[in-house]
Amino acid sequence: MQRINEDAILNFETRYRAQFINSITGFKSLGLVGSRSHEGNTNLAIFSSFTHLGSNPALLACIFRPDSVERHTLSNILQTGFYTFNHIHENIYQQAHQTSARYAREISEFDAVGLTPEYKNGFWAPFCQESFLQVGLELKEKIDITINGTIMVIGQVKEVYIPDNTLHPDGYVDVEKAQTLCCSGLDSYHKTKRLHRLSYAKTDKEVTFLT
Amino acid sequence: MQRINEDAILNFETRYRAQFINSITGFKSLGLVGSRSHEGNTNLAIFSSFTHLGSNPALLACIFRPDSVERHTLSNILQTGFYTFNHIHENIYQQAHQTSARYAREISEFDAVGLTPEYKNGFWAPFCQESFLQVGLELKEKIDITINGTIMVIGQVKEVYIPDNTLHPDGYVDVEKAQTLCCSGLDSYHKTKRLHRLSYAKTDKEVTFLT
Repeated sequence: MQRINEDAILNFETRYRAQFINSITGFKSLGLVGSRSHEGNTNLAIFSSFTHLGSNPALLACIFRPDSVERHTLSNILQTGFYTFNHIHENIYQQAHQTSARYAREISEFDAVGLTPEYKNGFWAPFCQESFLQVGLELKEKIDITINGTIMVIGQVKEVYIPDNTLHPDGYVDVEKAQTLCCSGLDSYHKTKRLHRLSYAKTDKEVTFLT
Repeated sequence: MQRINEDAILNFETRYRAQFINSITGFKSLGLVGSRSHEGNTNLAIFSSFTHLGSNPALLACIFRPDSVERHTLSNILQTGFYTFNHIHENIYQQAHQTSARYAREISEFDAVGLTPEYKNGFWAPFCQESFLQVGLELKEKIDITINGTIMVIGQVKEVYIPDNTLHPDGYVDVEKAQTLCCSGLDSYHKTKRLHRLSYAKTDKEVTFLT
């Protein structure tokens, strides 16, 4: 094994360090956040920081870096209170990645990268039509993380659209069957291959494979 | 597509809802958190909420549910300030899952599931010896998330151990080559297959595959 300690990390060149530290959490959730300003300008931005915060109420959290290209998205969310999270599959991951380029505020990344805003059931923010799994969220809380100036945005799940035949009898949504991708580092995209689902762990018995 | 709205989610049975909401973020980072109390009692707990918070300083965040089995881990971290994050591969994922069983405080999950605490370079908290990628962290901040009583713990990266030949020339660590797994929902474990690494996105050019 190769050891890299704190001093070595401090001495890394900025972009090298960003690649390195972004890699060491392992694989990351991947999605496109859709938003729309009061004036109707849309934004679409790729995120790898969506995390389950709780199921009752159903809350997802994500992290914004204020100096990044996601700032138009954050501004739309704070202004209107609504946004969408759209999973990414193999046929759209290159367009999804391209949304991270620094487009001007008046440019919609939907147009710039060739993806389609979709409005349905009265939800303010646009879903990504090409996405196979879509979540509509309402802003509940913004937490300023003072240690490094990042911002955690917490949203409540209002709408979920999933492909037919991906919902298991116990509530699990088969995101592999939905062709959802994950990512690692800043730019590596991955498909998945399930090993197994495992039984609920109890102290007095061995885990078994769920079928 | 199947639509599931907020009312439907509210009416789900508790465990069904937990499976469902845990699924919709897509694939999740996966790791074992090692910790040790002042008295020397060790704990090992599986986590799927580790998120990159920043690279300079190098910070990772994770979420604790206060009523969960991870409470011994949280107590150790708050008491001593140190913990480890250890990636999970195919040969240890069943033991890793078993750490989520509700063991009594005096039981070390290392012993209970058959994994080995590893101490090195003076770091207080135990690494998981069987893990191929290990991170040592120092507690920097604890944020109480009042909306649902969860707790975000922010740690600074002090030590990283990675397998030989996984560090790319640009700082990317090839976590797929390191055999790191990811998970979905509460109990589904997955290997990955890289599609491509993509070039840094710029507004005036198309993304290309990195080799």
